[in-house]
Amino acid sequence: MINFVRENFFPMKNIYSSKNICEILIENIKQERITNNFKILDISSLNSIKENSILFLDRKAVLSKLNYDNVLLITDDQNTFNNREFKNIIFVKNLSESWNIIINNIYSHEDETSYEDEFVVSNNSYISKYAKIDSSAKIFNNCVIGKGVEIGKNCIIKNNVVIKNCLIKNNVIICDNTSIGMTGFGFEFKKRGSTFLNPQIGVVIIDDNVHLGSSCTIDRGKIDFTYIGKNSMIDNLVHIAHNVYIGENACIAAQTGISGSVVIGNNVTVGGKVGFAGHIKIGNNVVVAARSGVTKDIKDNSIIAGFPAIDINRWKKSIIRQRKNGH
Amino acid sequence: MINFVRENFFPMKNIYSSKNICEILIENIKQERITNNFKILDISSLNSIKENSILFLDRKAVLSKLNYDNVLLITDDQNTFNNREFKNIIFVKNLSESWNIIINNIYSHEDETSYEDEFVVSNNSYISKYAKIDSSAKIFNNCVIGKGVEIGKNCIIKNNVVIKNCLIKNNVIICDNTSIGMTGFGFEFKKRGSTFLNPQIGVVIIDDNVHLGSSCTIDRGKIDFTYIGKNSMIDNLVHIAHNVYIGENACIAAQTGISGSVVIGNNVTVGGKVGFAGHIKIGNNVVVAARSGVTKDIKDNSIIAGFPAIDINRWKKSIIRQRKNGH
Amino acid sequence: MINFVRENFFPMKNIYSSKNICEILIENIKQERITNNFKILDISSLNSIKENSILFLDRKAVLSKLNYDNVLLITDDQNTFNNREFKNIIFVKNLSESWNIIINNIYSHEDETSYEDEFVVSNNSYISKYAKIDSSAKIFNNCVIGKGVEIGKNCIIKNNVVIKNCLIKNNVIICDNTSIGMTGFGFEFKKRGSTFLNPQIGVVIIDDNVHLGSSCTIDRGKIDFTYIGKNSMIDNLVHIAHNVYIGENACIAAQTGISGSVVIGNNVTVGGKVGFAGHIKIGNNVVVAARSGVTKDIKDNSIIAGFPAIDINRWKKSIIRQRKNGH
Repeated sequence: MINFVRENFFPMKNIYSSKNICEILIENIKQERITNNFKILDISSLNSIKENSILFLDRKAVLSKLNYDNVLLITDDQNTFNNREFKNIIFVKNLSESWNIIINNIYSHEDETSYEDEFVVSNNSYISKYAKIDSSAKIFNNCVIGKGVEIGKNCIIKNNVVIKNCLIKNNVIICDNTSIGMTGFGFEFKKRGSTFLNPQIGVVIIDDNVHLGSSCTIDRGKIDFTYIGKNSMIDNLVHIAHNVYIGENACIAAQTGISGSVVIGNNVTVGGKVGFAGHIKIGNNVVVAARSGVTKDIKDNSIIAGFPAIDINRWKKSIIRQRKNGH
Repeated sequence: MINFVRENFFPMKNIYSSKNICEILIENIKQERITNNFKILDISSLNSIKENSILFLDRKAVLSKLNYDNVLLITDDQNTFNNREFKNIIFVKNLSESWNIIINNIYSHEDETSYEDEFVVSNNSYISKYAKIDSSAKIFNNCVIGKGVEIGKNCIIKNNVVIKNCLIKNNVIICDNTSIGMTGFGFEFKKRGSTFLNPQIGVVIIDDNVHLGSSCTIDRGKIDFTYIGKNSMIDNLVHIAHNVYIGENACIAAQTGISGSVVIGNNVTVGGKVGFAGHIKIGNNVVVAARSGVTKDIKDNSIIAGFPAIDINRWKKSIIRQRKNGH
Repeated sequence: MINFVRENFFPMKNIYSSKNICEILIENIKQERITNNFKILDISSLNSIKENSILFLDRKAVLSKLNYDNVLLITDDQNTFNNREFKNIIFVKNLSESWNIIINNIYSHEDETSYEDEFVVSNNSYISKYAKIDSSAKIFNNCVIGKGVEIGKNCIIKNNVVIKNCLIKNNVIICDNTSIGMTGFGFEFKKRGSTFLNPQIGVVIIDDNVHLGSSCTIDRGKIDFTYIGKNSMIDNLVHIAHNVYIGENACIAAQTGISGSVVIGNNVTVGGKVGFAGHIKIGNNVVVAARSGVTKDIKDNSIIAGFPAIDINRWKKSIIRQRKNGH
């Protein structure tokens, strides 16, 4: 069971009630129905709906239950979510803007200039006073370990590594110049610029025995987490976007990029320079040849290659055919 | 209007006259004609021809005007530039070597061991005494901010970021482990090695509200600048080479690489792992699918994919055809 | 002649005799034959077989000579290496595990928490007390230079660079945020996780006049070295894996990745985003077009493109054919 305490990373600036939320969104509200007034203490995702929270719903969201007493739903889609059973719902003009307004009012985060952390110098690295590092872990030089970060037993964090908003279990090795826990690349597509960046208030969780190469970039989850499963081996210059989930025993070669919200099963092997499109699901025991571009869900035990990636034997035949034609 | 003061970044070691330049080039000169003796105070590019400067001309250069009183032309091409109207011109044996000799004599730069900068430690980062950072900007740990750099209002520079030879406007966010303002990959193709590296004496200009991801590399211009337009969103591990110009509202996904002197219009969207060949021009409102390799100029409003990148519908059809053949 | 002293980088914890090795491998041994008892003072590779050493042999290994008096052979392949002439040989159950047990017992290395180095702060960087840096070399801020590293005359090491387990000759320039000398991505494919990582006890050797870009990652050799030849120009975000050998005068553009044990000849030019599969050999004077995926040995003087990379003219024709079909 994976869990984390959001406030350890993103301290709450204000505690609002469900009715207060209407007040701060005021300009953005089309319609509202607040049956219960309750304190907002967390943000929910569809995967993890919590008491006393807000749940943002885009038009693709599917809710398993309708009547939450103390969950405030916020959506811009009056057609999909017009059910009278929703006790607490606000229909807004713009969902991305509403996210920004609410999160910026509730949580402190690194994308605002007022964000603060306090560091001590330890073994030539800056360690937050609010980080917990096991005494058996080894941290090399010029690292930055931010607020709320936990690092488990026998971990080795090499030089110039930045770790923020992250829980690291035991025996994890992280190589030089890698960055973990950064703001994901999330914003409303039509409103660009740093001022419209969606604050990201999730974390990265790195499980036991993971090996992470050099100059990798692992963005944190938007609400929940980016996860790297036990015993996974990640090579250099790999990009792992926000909300990605990688199962146990992954092997991912250099310069591969995994787009947001991709889910990868157990025992998956990925060659170098592979790209994964966002929001796809890769089964267990899948092998992805180097340089593939994976654009769709892939079944368990598949071996794939090419762009768009297909069964490796079909891909090999198509290459042979292309080369034979005209000779 | 974009401008910068070269000497803030590259202090002048010597002030030469146009006739002095002949003396330092001596071995390399084939022919010369110096009508006016004037002080050399800057280096011009074809885009920005300045008084009291030197302008280097390769055989592809097109000059709009011929008779500059106090611009010294230097070229290795006696056929193209044999016009008697040129008042001050030196024909050299090797243009790249002449560049190196002249620039190394005039300007101090980071690719010589004698280069100096002076730093103060501020909030756990090294800030040059000759940098100007707005008091509202926030700089995290282990950064290096070099000589001449200016950082505007409300900027956030995260951890282990290196910023040299760069002007940054307001509300810019730069994520961890990114490097900005490095020497571009410029050298005479036939003479390799660090000792033949062409000194690069331009800068990087990053306009308002840009968001730059982690572990990106943005090289500075050779003479003028590499430019990233307002509201542009750049993801992680993106490479932007020297002299690239990116318009407003760009969205560039992770692991994309943009070769030298590419010009990108406004409102361009680029998927992950895209590559752009050097010296091409991408129109406004262009969308480039992930993993494309763009090799030619692209018209406004195009949607392209593949390698070499073509109209996305043509590309999709060609993929379907390849896969159908033989079944 | 390239050479290095392993102990300068990886201090020996214990000196074992050939018979002691049997004792530490005990559980893993299938059969053994130790004719001579001698001290183990180094680890050999097939390219460099040393006196008083251990040589690990996988089933593909080809030995030029059979009867070494004081070399201890260790292999998991009783069929291939069943020759009675081998004087000192241990047949083990698992070669990768045996490597780990032996190397971890003999050598101190950075992938164990007990590893120690001692640093002094010099010009805003952490320099190991056991590094040798020529007084004419220039090191910028926030660098880490590890134990045993040697840096030659007139080198320039820019900001936030990590250099470990590396010998750097003269006039080398290394740009910001690059990492050199990291543990290669080596482990038994079926046993994943940091606890099964094969210790790597080789180095990186960077020859005269090399220029290395920003955010590159150069892993060290497993036993011998990763080598970058004289005058080679390497752009940004390039990945060079363990045991790669790059000849003189290479030019390698941004975001290229070179897999383990690739050998590249002299005067090779490689475009951006190229990938090389592991263990292949690229001849002299080869040109590889941008975005190629090179999967096989390539002859001298070839110009190649595509994936799998072929002669560039064949590749161009195949592209034209693909695009014409169906029109």
